Amino acid sequence: MRIRYILAAAAMLLPGGTGVGQTVTEDFKPSTLNQPGRDYPQVNSQGYARFRIEAPDAKSVVVTLGGGTTLQKIDSVAWVGTTPRPLDEGFHYYRVTIDGGTFNDPGALNFYGSTRWESGIEVPAQDRDFYALKDVPHGRVQQVLFPSASTKTSRRAFVYTPPGYEKNQSERYPVLYLQHGWGEDETGWSTQGHVNLIMDNLLAAGTIKPFIIVMTYGMTNEGGLRPGGPRPGAAPAGPPAAGAPPAGQQRPGAAPAGAPPARPAFNFDAFRTVLLDELIPYVDANFRTLADQPHRAMAGLSMGGMQTKTITLANLDKFSHIGLFSGGTIAASEITDMDRFKQQVKLVFVTSGSRENPDRLAPAAESLKAAGIRSGSYVSPNTAHEWLTWRRSFREFAPLLFQN
Amino acid sequence: MRIRYILAAAAMLLPGGTGVGQTVTEDFKPSTLNQPGRDYPQVNSQGYARFRIEAPDAKSVVVTLGGGTTLQKIDSVAWVGTTPRPLDEGFHYYRVTIDGGTFNDPGALNFYGSTRWESGIEVPAQDRDFYALKDVPHGRVQQVLFPSASTKTSRRAFVYTPPGYEKNQSERYPVLYLQHGWGEDETGWSTQGHVNLIMDNLLAAGTIKPFIIVMTYGMTNEGGLRPGGPRPGAAPAGPPAAGAPPAGQQRPGAAPAGAPPARPAFNFDAFRTVLLDELIPYVDANFRTLADQPHRAMAGLSMGGMQTKTITLANLDKFSHIGLFSGGTIAASEITDMDRFKQQVKLVFVTSGSRENPDRLAPAAESLKAAGIRSGSYVSPNTAHEWLTWRRSFREFAPLLFQN
Repeated sequence: MRIRYILAAAAMLLPGGTGVGQTVTEDFKPSTLNQPGRDYPQVNSQGYARFRIEAPDAKSVVVTLGGGTTLQKIDSVAWVGTTPRPLDEGFHYYRVTIDGGTFNDPGALNFYGSTRWESGIEVPAQDRDFYALKDVPHGRVQQVLFPSASTKTSRRAFVYTPPGYEKNQSERYPVLYLQHGWGEDETGWSTQGHVNLIMDNLLAAGTIKPFIIVMTYGMTNEGGLRPGGPRPGAAPAGPPAAGAPPAGQQRPGAAPAGAPPARPAFNFDAFRTVLLDELIPYVDANFRTLADQPHRAMAGLSMGGMQTKTITLANLDKFSHIGLFSGGTIAASEITDMDRFKQQVKLVFVTSGSRENPDRLAPAAESLKAAGIRSGSYVSPNTAHEWLTWRRSFREFAPLLFQN
Repeated sequence: MRIRYILAAAAMLLPGGTGVGQTVTEDFKPSTLNQPGRDYPQVNSQGYARFRIEAPDAKSVVVTLGGGTTLQKIDSVAWVGTTPRPLDEGFHYYRVTIDGGTFNDPGALNFYGSTRWESGIEVPAQDRDFYALKDVPHGRVQQVLFPSASTKTSRRAFVYTPPGYEKNQSERYPVLYLQHGWGEDETGWSTQGHVNLIMDNLLAAGTIKPFIIVMTYGMTNEGGLRPGGPRPGAAPAGPPAAGAPPAGQQRPGAAPAGAPPARPAFNFDAFRTVLLDELIPYVDANFRTLADQPHRAMAGLSMGGMQTKTITLANLDKFSHIGLFSGGTIAASEITDMDRFKQQVKLVFVTSGSRENPDRLAPAAESLKAAGIRSGSYVSPNTAHEWLTWRRSFREFAPLLFQN
């Protein structure tokens, strides 16, 4: 009993917790990511989340958020519980354990993370206006199926084209290749990332130049893109997928994006082939791109940042702008041919959440600046390895692109 | 006990059941709609489905398919069960009851039906080749957000453009407006419907002319689009949604598409406004359409068919081709001004599954033919009110469009 109390107090002191002795305000509202007509889960103004799950004959119902929230049976049907501490602002994946089995919350929409479709909840952020749906011109998000000889299938990508793309037939656009994290897929950036709405809003505000964004699936089973070892604090990866799922469906992957980036023996060779030899030629042939190095950028979050670093540094003739969101840094000491790097690279931008390990960002950026490279960093306040960090990272990154 | 056996035998005689005394063949394979790396649910060559759900401490696990399949605990973790009879070929929605609560199968992908995200399973159809992903030129499916003054929001539509649309800048295309069923949403046709792949394949085979397909959400809360009474055999509708969810998210609706079409007091006025006054002008302004009546079609499944009938018959100056899939018929006796109808309508096509009430189709089509209208009907063999019926209906309908 004593130990339990100590653990509870410790939980309240974890990042995200401001809640020791805090009174929970009874102003809970349905999460904006609920399924239609569902009242639960709910979130209050302090960031506490409350769950209600109907399971009349269950023995136990536990939600993974808030360090684990055990629900209590309140009547003959429903289990209800509130997180022991406020959650960070922004988006969170979660799941529900019912009598020892893992399920999703029937009240919440699902989002692909941890190599499965997970429940999602949104804690309204103070600065949510930048990714809100507004009455401004909207770009389009298109699904394309591009031929991939190396993986012997058609692969899916989503392509954001800015407002006016259809009308301005004489205009060509720069392109950003933007990657998801480990266990996620090509739906992430335009669903929980709201990257299309962030773009629409930045364009409407006139603070960025229009560009195309291409998002594809970064985990190629064929290439052995799997963790090389256990991820600390992460759920064990499921069995490898038997084969490529049908296009238009969701793809295999491997562990919680909510977990800190691991250092597995990733091998990005197969994905590099898909990206460089198949996707980029397809996009340049099928969209009105500026198909040259000065007008091509790559960025990614978490594992997508590692992919960005590995692939861009080995292919500086193809990419001029580089963004790593919670996905490592690039320091001057890592660059073997600085003259060439300086000549070819127009931007290196690194970010993370303040609850990650942000201290390494600025020194890396400064080392590049000292070498004459345009470089910057950004730390998202009061967020961890999670989507609000990455929405904000994109907002900071986008205005720096293609300014030459 | 006796009654139970009789019920079981009766279940085997239901449509879809060929299984009295049938031996279940042990050649089960994972459903093609499973989440990555998941071995269950499975389907065998006869169409039986087998489920495996992990819920160590549960008291009961029941799957809704096969007339209700009660799983048995086989070890300390898992519950397993096989449907008492084969399922129809094609796609089926389902859910799982765990200790009295309703959840989705963690092994299966989710699809929007019954106004919620449901588990889905696919029984491979003998003729599945027509909606398979093949190495042919692929069209694109784009998400657009169009302004809707009548509902005071941006609404979402998906737009299929055929291969070559981007390249052939001087070409303009006819447009089909294609609607989902009750409780479904604008994701249905391009996800469980595979309409983009069906189009790609028909175009590659040269059996149809290229056209654009526009799919939007047909349930406008504002317009009171709800059932006017209980639906026989259908689950009760959930509470009405509180408001419009954010664009890019899924929308409210109201009951299983798997259920036979009901005859509620639908009011399509609000949707008609969205379609005619907002969506069509947006599409004509933003895509290279042939923006006139001869090149505009409307079709829909189930409730979408009812919408098609109601809206086209009242707006013959806007639509020339009409398709009702499991969504009613149009008979000559219903046409008040046959001369005008004959002049304006280039096609009426009605379909249903053989396990629905298909006998009414041919007489209705014949009555129009007798009046000089180009008309036809199609009955999908061995299917009910379900997606294989509608995939096939589309395959039959598409070659008849825009042939003038």
